[in-house]
Amino acid sequence: MIRAAIVGGTGYTGVELLRLLANHPQVDLAVITSRSEAGMPVADMFPSLRGRVDLCFTEPDTKTLAACDVVFFATPHAVAMKSMDELLQHDVRVVDLSADFRVKDIPLWESWYGCKHEAPHWVDKAVYGLPEINREAMRTAQLVAAPGCYPTAVQLGYLPLLEAGIINPSDLIANCASGVSGAGKAAKVTSLYAECNEDFKAYGVPGHRHLPEIEQGLNGMTAEGVNLTFVPHLIPMTRGIHATLYATLTVDPSYDLQALFEQRYADEPYVDVLPAGSVPQTRTVRGSNYCRIAVERPQGRDKVVVMTAIDNLVKGASGQAIQAMNIMFGLDECAGLNVVPLSP
Amino acid sequence: MIRAAIVGGTGYTGVELLRLLANHPQVDLAVITSRSEAGMPVADMFPSLRGRVDLCFTEPDTKTLAACDVVFFATPHAVAMKSMDELLQHDVRVVDLSADFRVKDIPLWESWYGCKHEAPHWVDKAVYGLPEINREAMRTAQLVAAPGCYPTAVQLGYLPLLEAGIINPSDLIANCASGVSGAGKAAKVTSLYAECNEDFKAYGVPGHRHLPEIEQGLNGMTAEGVNLTFVPHLIPMTRGIHATLYATLTVDPSYDLQALFEQRYADEPYVDVLPAGSVPQTRTVRGSNYCRIAVERPQGRDKVVVMTAIDNLVKGASGQAIQAMNIMFGLDECAGLNVVPLSP
Amino acid sequence: MIRAAIVGGTGYTGVELLRLLANHPQVDLAVITSRSEAGMPVADMFPSLRGRVDLCFTEPDTKTLAACDVVFFATPHAVAMKSMDELLQHDVRVVDLSADFRVKDIPLWESWYGCKHEAPHWVDKAVYGLPEINREAMRTAQLVAAPGCYPTAVQLGYLPLLEAGIINPSDLIANCASGVSGAGKAAKVTSLYAECNEDFKAYGVPGHRHLPEIEQGLNGMTAEGVNLTFVPHLIPMTRGIHATLYATLTVDPSYDLQALFEQRYADEPYVDVLPAGSVPQTRTVRGSNYCRIAVERPQGRDKVVVMTAIDNLVKGASGQAIQAMNIMFGLDECAGLNVVPLSP
Amino acid sequence: MIRAAIVGGTGYTGVELLRLLANHPQVDLAVITSRSEAGMPVADMFPSLRGRVDLCFTEPDTKTLAACDVVFFATPHAVAMKSMDELLQHDVRVVDLSADFRVKDIPLWESWYGCKHEAPHWVDKAVYGLPEINREAMRTAQLVAAPGCYPTAVQLGYLPLLEAGIINPSDLIANCASGVSGAGKAAKVTSLYAECNEDFKAYGVPGHRHLPEIEQGLNGMTAEGVNLTFVPHLIPMTRGIHATLYATLTVDPSYDLQALFEQRYADEPYVDVLPAGSVPQTRTVRGSNYCRIAVERPQGRDKVVVMTAIDNLVKGASGQAIQAMNIMFGLDECAGLNVVPLSP
Repeated sequence: MIRAAIVGGTGYTGVELLRLLANHPQVDLAVITSRSEAGMPVADMFPSLRGRVDLCFTEPDTKTLAACDVVFFATPHAVAMKSMDELLQHDVRVVDLSADFRVKDIPLWESWYGCKHEAPHWVDKAVYGLPEINREAMRTAQLVAAPGCYPTAVQLGYLPLLEAGIINPSDLIANCASGVSGAGKAAKVTSLYAECNEDFKAYGVPGHRHLPEIEQGLNGMTAEGVNLTFVPHLIPMTRGIHATLYATLTVDPSYDLQALFEQRYADEPYVDVLPAGSVPQTRTVRGSNYCRIAVERPQGRDKVVVMTAIDNLVKGASGQAIQAMNIMFGLDECAGLNVVPLSP
Repeated sequence: MIRAAIVGGTGYTGVELLRLLANHPQVDLAVITSRSEAGMPVADMFPSLRGRVDLCFTEPDTKTLAACDVVFFATPHAVAMKSMDELLQHDVRVVDLSADFRVKDIPLWESWYGCKHEAPHWVDKAVYGLPEINREAMRTAQLVAAPGCYPTAVQLGYLPLLEAGIINPSDLIANCASGVSGAGKAAKVTSLYAECNEDFKAYGVPGHRHLPEIEQGLNGMTAEGVNLTFVPHLIPMTRGIHATLYATLTVDPSYDLQALFEQRYADEPYVDVLPAGSVPQTRTVRGSNYCRIAVERPQGRDKVVVMTAIDNLVKGASGQAIQAMNIMFGLDECAGLNVVPLSP
Repeated sequence: MIRAAIVGGTGYTGVELLRLLANHPQVDLAVITSRSEAGMPVADMFPSLRGRVDLCFTEPDTKTLAACDVVFFATPHAVAMKSMDELLQHDVRVVDLSADFRVKDIPLWESWYGCKHEAPHWVDKAVYGLPEINREAMRTAQLVAAPGCYPTAVQLGYLPLLEAGIINPSDLIANCASGVSGAGKAAKVTSLYAECNEDFKAYGVPGHRHLPEIEQGLNGMTAEGVNLTFVPHLIPMTRGIHATLYATLTVDPSYDLQALFEQRYADEPYVDVLPAGSVPQTRTVRGSNYCRIAVERPQGRDKVVVMTAIDNLVKGASGQAIQAMNIMFGLDECAGLNVVPLSP
Repeated sequence: MIRAAIVGGTGYTGVELLRLLANHPQVDLAVITSRSEAGMPVADMFPSLRGRVDLCFTEPDTKTLAACDVVFFATPHAVAMKSMDELLQHDVRVVDLSADFRVKDIPLWESWYGCKHEAPHWVDKAVYGLPEINREAMRTAQLVAAPGCYPTAVQLGYLPLLEAGIINPSDLIANCASGVSGAGKAAKVTSLYAECNEDFKAYGVPGHRHLPEIEQGLNGMTAEGVNLTFVPHLIPMTRGIHATLYATLTVDPSYDLQALFEQRYADEPYVDVLPAGSVPQTRTVRGSNYCRIAVERPQGRDKVVVMTAIDNLVKGASGQAIQAMNIMFGLDECAGLNVVPLSP
């Protein structure tokens, strides 16, 4: 059994790790830390876990964490980076769900996150944990930076097109929308029920922190430089991310886009290319690690439209982190992730 | 492996059976019937099952069904009763999720359901499938009538009180509320999103079909006759039933209601008595087979308030049906039901 | 024109007063105060008011308030009481939307609200602003205590029954449910979208602050003492309160309950008794000052069920406050309140 | 007083016309027709109108309609066109909320709507009722074709940019999203609460019927031909349309886009250009005739992002139809449309 720890377990990605790990056949959940809630049984904060998770929150402590096989960081950005030097000198592996190790360009990261990076040397060593691109490198990584939710949805949608070189990479538009759980469990007026319900709006239009992460990922798929316009929106629902991706095709209408996508993802356990003419719905992935994708060329014109749907808390966060752990430890990649989506 | 069939698999209890059985370690889902959709892959109708359920809907056919070990009826009322004579002469067992075999008083059933009962002799033989009351009888039953959603939530709440004989049974009030999936997948104006969203209302106030089923169940818990006022309401959410139950206590305020409930349900895998001072929330049972319960005596006056929460499609339907099957076949009662609730 | 001021205009009852007063033909909205937002244009905080309300928030200041004809307090409890002595020595009239002057029994108020009452002498003089009961007294009141949201829904439902003396007042049960806007605009985890959506729960079961206000009101309708069990619930929607009220009838089934309600409310502009067999829906009152009511005697047994629906922010707060102002100033009682409910 | 009739009043645009006209100071609502509901009081179908609309539905009848000053058609497409010859020979004016007279290219209309146009000669005479473009022509029109919901949101967003000639018109992308009321009140499985709640999806990706209407409108704003990719999505909420519009700018970053929009709409009563840095939210227009707009140039790159928000049932349908009527009859353009948005 793999002994696992979670640092910062009181948020939505924390409870989601717990939900999934509680049913993981090869993981023994040993530690979950929270400075603010130390001593409280986890199931008191999350009654959905009653009878399934018996742990109490504890103070974070390097010695205890280092005695585990894997540590998940479900903390806000700029927290995990402070612990890496001390923690990673031990024989322990880390999956960081935060943004600390995703962006390789340190000054760029610092400009978007507004603080100095305290472990830049670990950024180089960190492997970006999108299995569909980096599976091999992940196997041996000591530190995996789990991708952000929007970056997962956008990269998986553009990947076949950019790899095939059949779109103009300088003119990409990613129109995305997320459920409110993406804003986390912090008590903010803008996340209140009465503020979000029956409302739809864009946010972060001048620039969202996921932009550099996405552009870095897309740049890795093509020799030419990409230029992305990325506009996220807030949907009045709890879970789910939907990306509608636009690009200008450089191939004629006879090109078989459907086949391209099906072949690219034929062996991927968590990317599901829908039949031609379908559209992905966030509710068909709810609670699961799937990314469902559809591709269209409306009216046979020169634009391609790719639509992807994931559960922002699973494939967009905790599920993908567990997928990473499974890969790192040579387990069945689907272990603990066999949840069938909850629909309706 | 147990070979299972589902009759009438296109509704919400059907897809829910599929979701749960897909992960059941001892069940081989062999047949799913639908007259209207015969030939269609199940996953085309329910994309949430893509990659998990490979069956196609087939025409219902007694021979095929009789070759299975267990048949679930997820049909509207007055359908299952027509098949019992033919089907149950074979060595097959049935769990009926509909209302056909729940009410023992045939004329009463006929007056509420507005049609003649075509298999009254099977009503007698059917075992009412609430494990918390009937577990022993269920083990050997050939036909189990799975309880309705409201009846489950109401009976589990009143059970300890009536068994203990500490309330006045002639003066019970069950104020219940259900998510919209309880109305099924039929295309009705009253179930439209724009009709249900941002709305709350009572329905069936003069009389709801679950009343005779509930009163029959409650009458079985006490020697005196019960009298129940039952008012269901519609909540703008998809899943979940919440019951708020009122009764007049015949014991003084020193009586330990919390202990009564905890002891009654100590060995029940799917009834969770919350700590004193808590309230059950439907989201803490979403997707799972749990019933969470809390009990209060407000202001130390003479009324007791019991609150129960279940997922109407799981403990209120398909999960309870699978729990019944597990009991009937001597399996681990929790097999296939280890889903951790999805929260948030 | 009546010059009006609002104290504490940044919450949901504040913006709702603004929405309604903006279209009031005889009111000039002169002042709106907020200590925290002084200087900010109201429409910056509430873009729904752009082009309709040009005021900026200002620091509260007695001189400015006293120069108005009417001052609305849309503050949390224990704020308005601190200003009454100074303010009411001037020729100004006050409608307090908070709980400060609703409960006549000062020690009872202090025990529920957990603080000392600082203006008990004004409690006596304050008129409880439920027009359906107190219209005459309101005309000449200098200080009106606008009723709470639940108390409005519950009192209007029991009023005809208690006045007619046809129920047992010692055995009342009010099962109520409110949209999340009732929790206000404060940033609390329990009011987050992802916490409230797809959830239903009771709260305040051991005792809710509206209980003494409701019992006081009901006691005023009957010579016998009432005993009420009051359980509020939270609905995943923004606006609306629904009350389901139970009582034991002392009249036989031939008694015409429908006629009783219709006659009692025949002249009330904002109480709408629905036709027999109907149920009130919160969406049919959304944004309006109406209270819709239906009454049933299920199965002809001895329980009566009354259902009422209001918009918690209108008839349950700001609309009723404006109705009070109209009465106090001898205006058409419906002035500014002609909003047709928004449905769907 | 203007005598008004509504043909086809049982859908959501019908009840919305009723809600608004009920408070219109110069309109006498005389007739509302419905073949299926003739004889039923309107308020029985729409209890939100109780006490405000006393009419009953009647059979449609040309003589009665022709005796009115204005007739609104709130019918599905291909209905209004059948009545125009007979009706418009009388001295009556028509506002058609359906798609029948919006698209000038008859074969194009026929190919998208799948039926023969039965009144092509009236298409020529019809004035497209977007006041921000066609106000003058509308004043004297006998027949106004009220724009579709998406076309309104998209055209108002692109109008300043195309008129100013500062974007490339051959490369437009309109990513739109609508609340579920846009799908109408027909009983369809895809519009059920349990199907739409907690879900987000695109639809009509290969081609949506509003595309030719939008492209026709945009083509009227520029000498060059436009090419639009239009992808609508369904939002789990009742009301509201949000458009996120993308285009490639041909001017450098110093160009003042904010000033362009503010100047273009300075005199428009229902187009509200938000301050720089804002985003429109659908809830800030709910129930009102406003279109709120914001414009951004993310990262100073070459893409412009315009966001517009309207209430699909008001500015996107019934409110805009009343605005048209006001213009046609020389009334105050805002008469009956002074509803302040309902927020929260």
